[in-house]
Amino acid sequence: MGRPPGSTRFAERQREVVAAAASAIARRGYHATTIDDLVEATGLTRGGLYHYIGSKHTLLLQIHQRFIDPLLAEAEEIEAAGLAPDATLERLAVALMETIARYRDEVTVFLHEWRTVEDDPGWEDVRAARRRFEDVIARVLERGVAEGVMVVPNVRLAVLGFLGMFNYSYQWLRAGGRATPREIAESFVAIFLRGVVAGSA
Amino acid sequence: MGRPPGSTRFAERQREVVAAAASAIARRGYHATTIDDLVEATGLTRGGLYHYIGSKHTLLLQIHQRFIDPLLAEAEEIEAAGLAPDATLERLAVALMETIARYRDEVTVFLHEWRTVEDDPGWEDVRAARRRFEDVIARVLERGVAEGVMVVPNVRLAVLGFLGMFNYSYQWLRAGGRATPREIAESFVAIFLRGVVAGSA
Repeated sequence: MGRPPGSTRFAERQREVVAAAASAIARRGYHATTIDDLVEATGLTRGGLYHYIGSKHTLLLQIHQRFIDPLLAEAEEIEAAGLAPDATLERLAVALMETIARYRDEVTVFLHEWRTVEDDPGWEDVRAARRRFEDVIARVLERGVAEGVMVVPNVRLAVLGFLGMFNYSYQWLRAGGRATPREIAESFVAIFLRGVVAGSA
Repeated sequence: MGRPPGSTRFAERQREVVAAAASAIARRGYHATTIDDLVEATGLTRGGLYHYIGSKHTLLLQIHQRFIDPLLAEAEEIEAAGLAPDATLERLAVALMETIARYRDEVTVFLHEWRTVEDDPGWEDVRAARRRFEDVIARVLERGVAEGVMVVPNVRLAVLGFLGMFNYSYQWLRAGGRATPREIAESFVAIFLRGVVAGSA
């Protein structure tokens, strides 16, 4: 303690604290996880906990930002590279699956608990970030259609199907499982891409 | 009360009680839902609650059985009809999506809470039922491959991708949404089927 928020050391410790808290909440659920549980999970005092994460409520925002911010930045970088629609979708698929694998506890907490905070003012930013990520996927499909290489009757549903294939993996993905996140992503995106490619069956 | 378990009237009331309990648990999470919460959600006394659902722990089993038992029965009936692999998968897709739409609270509770009970003896039956459902999907794909109409390099991953597309809809499916569960299922299975069909791009 004693270091000002904003310093590198503070940010590093905060990341560890948020990760430990996410792990505890992923196991028991947000409502059932008490401040004492968080104190135990993080090894901090109550004061230290408040110092690093503020309230239990803002913790949910931080947990979500931990993975959506880097994922969104990566997705927009991939889109800006201007590769063909299929190659772009492949790269987005790998980025998404590797994010889920790396931040599985955080993704679990988000998917299980977002309804708890969806009416909070701070949540508007989270919702906007998610919408921006979904819009990247939608634009790739729209570009594929515009270029005549994809057929997508309903882009909104196709985006939801794509997200489902990948996001649902938080249920079964295991560290050290048979396939790496990249291999899983490549397997899924191959099915999805053939499913939307123009001229297929 | 006073009616023996096993009577039709008991079974009907029990269904209502389990549905009301599932709704409460879907909102707050299993660990944070107290017996008092369940008393309030179901309108029963503590004694009545015990009469209909036993312990809070066995409730999780009942919530899961509410949708997996009819879904599995329907899936095995569809498989037994012996239609072509693509038509079989289409029918399975609609059955799955309509089940998720109808039992959304129950599906939510299952997906969020199964780790809580996965080591329970009673859970073995639930796990077996889920495995049987997944095996129906896997067999359709294997039959498609054997008949030369599908190309599926990794059946296990393809099943997980298929389940993800559909199961993840518990996150966003709304009663009275723009598309019906059947329309969503048909849209998803069209992408998936083209993705695994032999001879496509």
